[in-house]
Amino acid sequence: MQINSINGGITAVEGVKAAGIKKGKYGLALISGGGTAACVYTKNSFKSGSLLVTNEHIARSGICNAVIINSGCANAFTGDEGIRDAEKICKMVAQHLKISPETVLIASTGVIGVRLDMDLILSEFNLIKDKLNSSPDASRMVAEAIMTTDTHPKEVAVEIRGSNGFVIGGVAKGSGMIAPDMATMLAFIYTDAALDHKTLQDALREAVNHSFNMTVVDGDMSTNDMVLLVSTGRRSNVAITEFQAALSHVCESLAKMIAADGEGATKLIEVMVRGAVTKEDATMAVKTILRSPLVKTAIFGGDPNWGRIASAIGYSGACVQEDKLSIELAGGGLTASVLYQGKARNEMDVASRIFDENEIQILVDIGLGDEEAKGWGCDLSYEYVRINAEYTT
Amino acid sequence: MQINSINGGITAVEGVKAAGIKKGKYGLALISGGGTAACVYTKNSFKSGSLLVTNEHIARSGICNAVIINSGCANAFTGDEGIRDAEKICKMVAQHLKISPETVLIASTGVIGVRLDMDLILSEFNLIKDKLNSSPDASRMVAEAIMTTDTHPKEVAVEIRGSNGFVIGGVAKGSGMIAPDMATMLAFIYTDAALDHKTLQDALREAVNHSFNMTVVDGDMSTNDMVLLVSTGRRSNVAITEFQAALSHVCESLAKMIAADGEGATKLIEVMVRGAVTKEDATMAVKTILRSPLVKTAIFGGDPNWGRIASAIGYSGACVQEDKLSIELAGGGLTASVLYQGKARNEMDVASRIFDENEIQILVDIGLGDEEAKGWGCDLSYEYVRINAEYTT
Repeated sequence: MQINSINGGITAVEGVKAAGIKKGKYGLALISGGGTAACVYTKNSFKSGSLLVTNEHIARSGICNAVIINSGCANAFTGDEGIRDAEKICKMVAQHLKISPETVLIASTGVIGVRLDMDLILSEFNLIKDKLNSSPDASRMVAEAIMTTDTHPKEVAVEIRGSNGFVIGGVAKGSGMIAPDMATMLAFIYTDAALDHKTLQDALREAVNHSFNMTVVDGDMSTNDMVLLVSTGRRSNVAITEFQAALSHVCESLAKMIAADGEGATKLIEVMVRGAVTKEDATMAVKTILRSPLVKTAIFGGDPNWGRIASAIGYSGACVQEDKLSIELAGGGLTASVLYQGKARNEMDVASRIFDENEIQILVDIGLGDEEAKGWGCDLSYEYVRINAEYTT
Repeated sequence: MQINSINGGITAVEGVKAAGIKKGKYGLALISGGGTAACVYTKNSFKSGSLLVTNEHIARSGICNAVIINSGCANAFTGDEGIRDAEKICKMVAQHLKISPETVLIASTGVIGVRLDMDLILSEFNLIKDKLNSSPDASRMVAEAIMTTDTHPKEVAVEIRGSNGFVIGGVAKGSGMIAPDMATMLAFIYTDAALDHKTLQDALREAVNHSFNMTVVDGDMSTNDMVLLVSTGRRSNVAITEFQAALSHVCESLAKMIAADGEGATKLIEVMVRGAVTKEDATMAVKTILRSPLVKTAIFGGDPNWGRIASAIGYSGACVQEDKLSIELAGGGLTASVLYQGKARNEMDVASRIFDENEIQILVDIGLGDEEAKGWGCDLSYEYVRINAEYTT
């Protein structure tokens, strides 16, 4: 099987139309078309009104014919009013597109604790509602409309060719409040592969676990995260293994874009942990390294202070043994073994050059078993502090 | 019972002598005198050679007659050689003071993965070994010698008066790699209260749980942390409840100094969570708020973006319910209720003035039970990034 990148994002999938607008901090995006839907949500106990309505609609109908997404306001900690606002917006979209309100989903991202500005959303909706189209530009407008502190729009599309070929396209946003073990951002993924709700849901959960759930910017977990997967059902007899591989590829591509565009990030970090006794150990070690402010600042500073990586592994909860642990750094075609089976190695000059690269790999061998895990994150810069010290003011 | 602050630190306790030296990044401190000892260590799976030797000595002898502490090198990830280095240093101290090497303890703090510079330690030892004395200056020299990125030496002494009165004095260091749920730094506490090993150990564990273990700078856990409590045994018949209260006071004072002196910190944050169903829930909520980079950067920026506090509580793992949650901010004599039982309150002007203060309290009422917990941390500033981007280079 070959996964070919193709032009565009969600509109690369036949039958999907999109439109979006961005005015300063506030944006609105509309996607029409679709069918069977699956969704993965944040594990935060506090969930936004928009997310609660989406959850309710999917649970009842299992169908998504349209999605409306606003940026600038999270519609979280807005109580029953927030739920009513979200329902009103879904109804407005449903009336315009002549579909059932239960097949309209809504997502919000932005500041917590503020009601949605319904007048603004109505006026923005009136500007975009008749502009729905299936051009690559339309997908790009959605990717731009849902950005908050993102510096780049994020979209991807792939095609699997052949008689049972299919297409998957996705857009995402995410830059801060990115923690492991949850959806961690907004992503909307469309496919023409005809699969039932349970198959879509299982495939999405599996892909999310190895992509978005292995992405860390700051370890903070949002009230609004969701990853939506919608099938238009136009291509039948798709091989599920091929679909899973392509969906995982799409999710991993978007997850890496999110990590690379972490707030203030100057470097993309990939952490690979091998030789763990259990899969859970490997996963915990990856996430703990990616989350460590000391590792992140060392990488920002280009300082290959690997002791901080070792220390993070030590407190990750994974089963470890000092004289089995090895750490390699890689980047820009160079590799440095800084710790081999518990012994420090004098490769700091090469390590320093690696840490000056924009993409850095940290390869850990725990040396006790056969399990492994991989994840992505970014460095912690002055810019992260600036962005977040000045977010609402 | 009244706890009176008195002048000095560890040398306020009769029979305790101290000496210290600091040369650039490297320091050495020596403390003599003592008796029964108790100790709490880091929970990091990787432990420094110095810590392993101290643990072994206390386990065997239960006695501490001297402590030697170096700063600048952690003696961690140094394998058997690191253990042998630490044993050699203990033997050197023992010969000079004519005591058993098993009653000499050693602590190290600094860069991980580098062998101790034995020549430097020997030459510094020769400079201080005959300068041991019991003046307040001697305690201060120890507090200064053990500093790494600390900007202030940290010491405290208290006296409980009366026929069964006693004294407790302590010094500590800690600024970065400060995480909850472990010792999180180095602290050396002396008392003249005559208590057996088990009583001292229980009292120390209790005091540490509510002080150092509730302190967060960055959530990173060191390989070297320890809190040592040593009794000279000169004051007998001490009431254990009074001792516990005084010891907790000393630990809390040192913990707050560490939080206030967190790397790059401009503000001390105290978080109090009430109304939790379990003590564990309250503790998790406190630590999650204090650890959140988004809360910490908002406080640095003076931006009372309480949604980030609410979001952190939501993902802390504590049992919560949106319409029961209340959040108050306090500081500089002002109080602002920003969220009351799930409803946002329009007190943002006062909240902004509070967030401009140097000491800020976050008061959370989960509204579901009777359990509570308290902890301390600091903001996340440009300076934290600078310090840690340039630590070893």
